[in-house]
Amino acid sequence: MAASQDVNLSLSIEEQGNPDDDTRAFRRALGQFATGVTVVTTSQESKKIGMAVNSFAAVSLDPPLVSWSIRKESRNLEAFTGGEHFAINVLASDQVETSSLFGRPSDNQFDEVAWSPAAKGDPLLNEAIAHFECDVETTYEGGDHVIIIGRVTRFARLAGAPLLFAQGQYRVAREHPRLRLTTAAPLSSVAEGESAPLFVSLLRTAEQRMSQMFSEYRERIGLAVTEARVINLLDAGIGHVEAISDQGLLDEETVEDALGDFIDRGWAAQSVSGKYVLTAQGAEVRASLLAAATEFNAKRLEGISDEDLQVARRVLGQIIVN
Amino acid sequence: MAASQDVNLSLSIEEQGNPDDDTRAFRRALGQFATGVTVVTTSQESKKIGMAVNSFAAVSLDPPLVSWSIRKESRNLEAFTGGEHFAINVLASDQVETSSLFGRPSDNQFDEVAWSPAAKGDPLLNEAIAHFECDVETTYEGGDHVIIIGRVTRFARLAGAPLLFAQGQYRVAREHPRLRLTTAAPLSSVAEGESAPLFVSLLRTAEQRMSQMFSEYRERIGLAVTEARVINLLDAGIGHVEAISDQGLLDEETVEDALGDFIDRGWAAQSVSGKYVLTAQGAEVRASLLAAATEFNAKRLEGISDEDLQVARRVLGQIIVN
Repeated sequence: MAASQDVNLSLSIEEQGNPDDDTRAFRRALGQFATGVTVVTTSQESKKIGMAVNSFAAVSLDPPLVSWSIRKESRNLEAFTGGEHFAINVLASDQVETSSLFGRPSDNQFDEVAWSPAAKGDPLLNEAIAHFECDVETTYEGGDHVIIIGRVTRFARLAGAPLLFAQGQYRVAREHPRLRLTTAAPLSSVAEGESAPLFVSLLRTAEQRMSQMFSEYRERIGLAVTEARVINLLDAGIGHVEAISDQGLLDEETVEDALGDFIDRGWAAQSVSGKYVLTAQGAEVRASLLAAATEFNAKRLEGISDEDLQVARRVLGQIIVN
Repeated sequence: MAASQDVNLSLSIEEQGNPDDDTRAFRRALGQFATGVTVVTTSQESKKIGMAVNSFAAVSLDPPLVSWSIRKESRNLEAFTGGEHFAINVLASDQVETSSLFGRPSDNQFDEVAWSPAAKGDPLLNEAIAHFECDVETTYEGGDHVIIIGRVTRFARLAGAPLLFAQGQYRVAREHPRLRLTTAAPLSSVAEGESAPLFVSLLRTAEQRMSQMFSEYRERIGLAVTEARVINLLDAGIGHVEAISDQGLLDEETVEDALGDFIDRGWAAQSVSGKYVLTAQGAEVRASLLAAATEFNAKRLEGISDEDLQVARRVLGQIIVN
């Protein structure tokens, strides 16, 4: 295997360096590791506290230990490091709003979600897909964070799919495309004859190709998916970080990164009211995004007659309403 | 908000208890938290060591710290806890084989992947989507694991999508279905007229409904997706844990769990050669899976004429080859 001391391994390096020189780029690199999303809760007398956390990790099965970390600057530091117990709630794919709710300071978060108290009073979110009731086993020094180790006293696994956070975006999980059709789609082979291409597999493959197309047209212009999304939202008149984050399903730091970059490139400006808007140059970028998109779209649908496309629309619509 | 001391929060609890009483059920609950997959590497003189790890977590930005944990029984324990440096490689969505390669003991793993040495010699996998070169900052006690804290001396972010591991399965990430169409699919609104339903969005929604159907028919029979997958592979004559794991994109412990459960239920047996096979009762379960699937499939395609279905197949096929 060819190997060299040069760090320039391939053409696909987007950013690299020493983390001390560029904290934001380092954070983006860390964001390549996908995670679930949890809400960690605790209770002190009548007060309930909760915060969204994605640094959760399984540590040990015997004894049953888990870990997560909290910023030393967090207003909840004392509640969690000084307390004796907490609960971890692993969020389901449809709990984006719950994640946002517990990602921002608020005093009435627990009025907005369905929960029940664990044995020691810590809130368990009813819609989560896993609960871990923990005693604080120990805490460890972790730079600008404190690492909290919990000993799990009770667990529950609930039905549902996980919410994901990766590359600055909330996402969901899907079956790996490499999965053999024999295991993924046995039903169609029965319903439609073993030799026919499977309808569900055609559908999945076509959808994957269309999604790939989106990536390609964005790469042409040198934009990440998150940046394209922020540009589209600015164009739609959505100009505040929190609103862009909510509607684009992006974390606020990712939105701030994109906006800072757009201002540096002259694509966006901040009005006196604090609202971000596209500049004329930014509007041009948005227009070229659309032009490239239109071209790719046409290419993908090339050779398909309008009549056939109409029928395909009707069939897909029928599948959706059935 | 209704709240009670009773842990029976809702009807969707699948398993719960004290982790000390059922380690496997506890592990399945931990599996509800989705993670990326990393390969952690180190080097000692001419020897290179690597292992697949999904307990990676970001700890601190300033100083730049990350953590992961290693089993105390691992044959690599001394290499990592006694060494001074290591590298983290975050795997891309198409690196399932790399994860399997580094998930099993082997002496020539580095002959099978493209890599380059970091400044201190630790292998960096060329196809990964992020690299973190680390000095060992400290190690912490973590039950049956040791928690290793690394100080990141150099990072790189590379192009690509993350490989996911969740609920015992390798998966990939997709856009969240809740994402507003204005941001997800601006192209179709231009190419096909603002008022028409977007083709790509029809495609995505139809595909999601079809996938949902799969879940529904499995739930009817009380099977998890992983169990249905193992049954289908056994039926196809694949009867060894490693092969089922590789072809079903499942981790080996999940496969072992399913097989153990099937033997308890009389659905599978182990032949003298060690190969797992479906019993007559298991074959019946597989048949009822297919019957339920056929029924759901028919329901989903109800009211669509054969002619229309043929056209839709042709359009999807064209999109795929375009």
